[in-house]
Amino acid sequence: MKIIGEKINGTRKLVAKAIAERDVAFIQNLAKKQVEGGASWLDVNAGTHPDREADDLVWLIGLVQEVTDVPLCLDSANPAALRVAMQHVKKTPMINSISGEQSRLRDILPIVAENGCEVIALCMDDKGIPATTETRIEVIRQVFEETRRAGVPDDKVFVDPLVMTIATNTEAGRTTFDTMRAIRAQFPQTHISCGLSNVSFGLPVRGLINRTFLVLALDAGMDTAIIDPNDRELQAAMRATDLLLGRDKHCLGYTRAYRAGLLENKA
Amino acid sequence: MKIIGEKINGTRKLVAKAIAERDVAFIQNLAKKQVEGGASWLDVNAGTHPDREADDLVWLIGLVQEVTDVPLCLDSANPAALRVAMQHVKKTPMINSISGEQSRLRDILPIVAENGCEVIALCMDDKGIPATTETRIEVIRQVFEETRRAGVPDDKVFVDPLVMTIATNTEAGRTTFDTMRAIRAQFPQTHISCGLSNVSFGLPVRGLINRTFLVLALDAGMDTAIIDPNDRELQAAMRATDLLLGRDKHCLGYTRAYRAGLLENKA
Repeated sequence: MKIIGEKINGTRKLVAKAIAERDVAFIQNLAKKQVEGGASWLDVNAGTHPDREADDLVWLIGLVQEVTDVPLCLDSANPAALRVAMQHVKKTPMINSISGEQSRLRDILPIVAENGCEVIALCMDDKGIPATTETRIEVIRQVFEETRRAGVPDDKVFVDPLVMTIATNTEAGRTTFDTMRAIRAQFPQTHISCGLSNVSFGLPVRGLINRTFLVLALDAGMDTAIIDPNDRELQAAMRATDLLLGRDKHCLGYTRAYRAGLLENKA
Repeated sequence: MKIIGEKINGTRKLVAKAIAERDVAFIQNLAKKQVEGGASWLDVNAGTHPDREADDLVWLIGLVQEVTDVPLCLDSANPAALRVAMQHVKKTPMINSISGEQSRLRDILPIVAENGCEVIALCMDDKGIPATTETRIEVIRQVFEETRRAGVPDDKVFVDPLVMTIATNTEAGRTTFDTMRAIRAQFPQTHISCGLSNVSFGLPVRGLINRTFLVLALDAGMDTAIIDPNDRELQAAMRATDLLLGRDKHCLGYTRAYRAGLLENKA
């Protein structure tokens, strides 16, 4: 499994403060720690007003690239800000995100196609997030029609089936896992990605639900997760799952993580 | 998921000592604690020499039945001891176990059939444990031919696909999960059971591997596990998995377990 480090996100309070105050050390520390934790991409979300977003994104990109070579995942729904940001990245970034929404397909997919980017594609359209596996697959089939027409190969697409809050719908997990299995079967070249934090909203001991979700999602075909790479319990669950699913030859990944002190809970 | 409490097992050192010294309190405490932890059956294994086994089993059965109404799972390969034990149980017990081994089918299956017992059926025969999913399914198909011929309905059979040690074979987990999925598809009425302790043998942080195995096995169709019901981390993993797989209506099992203090790690 590969990790998109989620922490440089201006919708989080401390990050918003660091952006407002131009706190270089705070942002660069977040970048370095996530790379040490094994992130393959760093999500960068300014989370600011559209008027300021391009400037803030460029500032964040510059800082992060000073301390790491890991490619970025530019997280914005603002095509103007994305086009400015594209001028400042050293490596081709991932774009977060397109979906079946017409505005995203019209304004963001061309940026992906022109620049040869990888892209996260959310299973939703202008009517919202479909309730069933079948309707989510129908939406993602339409998205693939558009990405293929635009010349984006399936293996640059990271489908996010989306997971709803299980506290309000106990079928939410099952729907997401079933959607992952269907995507894996119908689009074998694509990647499958997911964020974890919605699923446990409103329930106690959220970390337990999140890491159990991660195990089940990996089993259902997810190969990339948008998480905090410094969450030791998620890392441990990921290593154990790779081990048990036969994806860790000679148990090397597991035993190395153990020797690096990553598997034991130090609360 | 249902639990067969594994702890009253004379192959464990402290239990062997308690049996040898006729330590009533030790055994009854193990029984009570496992029932409090949610065990639906209590495994009872004397683990002693065939000459003593019937006497020890009868002693254990008497003690356990003094403190709980939960049915027993009589764990012995000795048909003489099992026949004696059958005279002393208050409720129809589960028998642990038959397999494709000719001696078990000849000597133990009739006890199961005559008494209307539930029975654990191991995916192995006189040649040992088959290496592949296909060959394990072939063995279990032969076992079902025998159980059906003996008049034991499929829903009284708890198939244990067996899991090998992942340290010596990284395909061990995958083989077990694939076997579970094939059993679930081909014998929809049967139960699927498994013990956890072999899988992690020889590796560090065994609890992490065991609870991750539990999550993946539940996803693959396991409905019964032979575990320590007082292992809080296994219980927590089980509750979170039931929740995420849509098997916990209104999240009631999860939130009740939380209120009972069962979900948080208190190391």
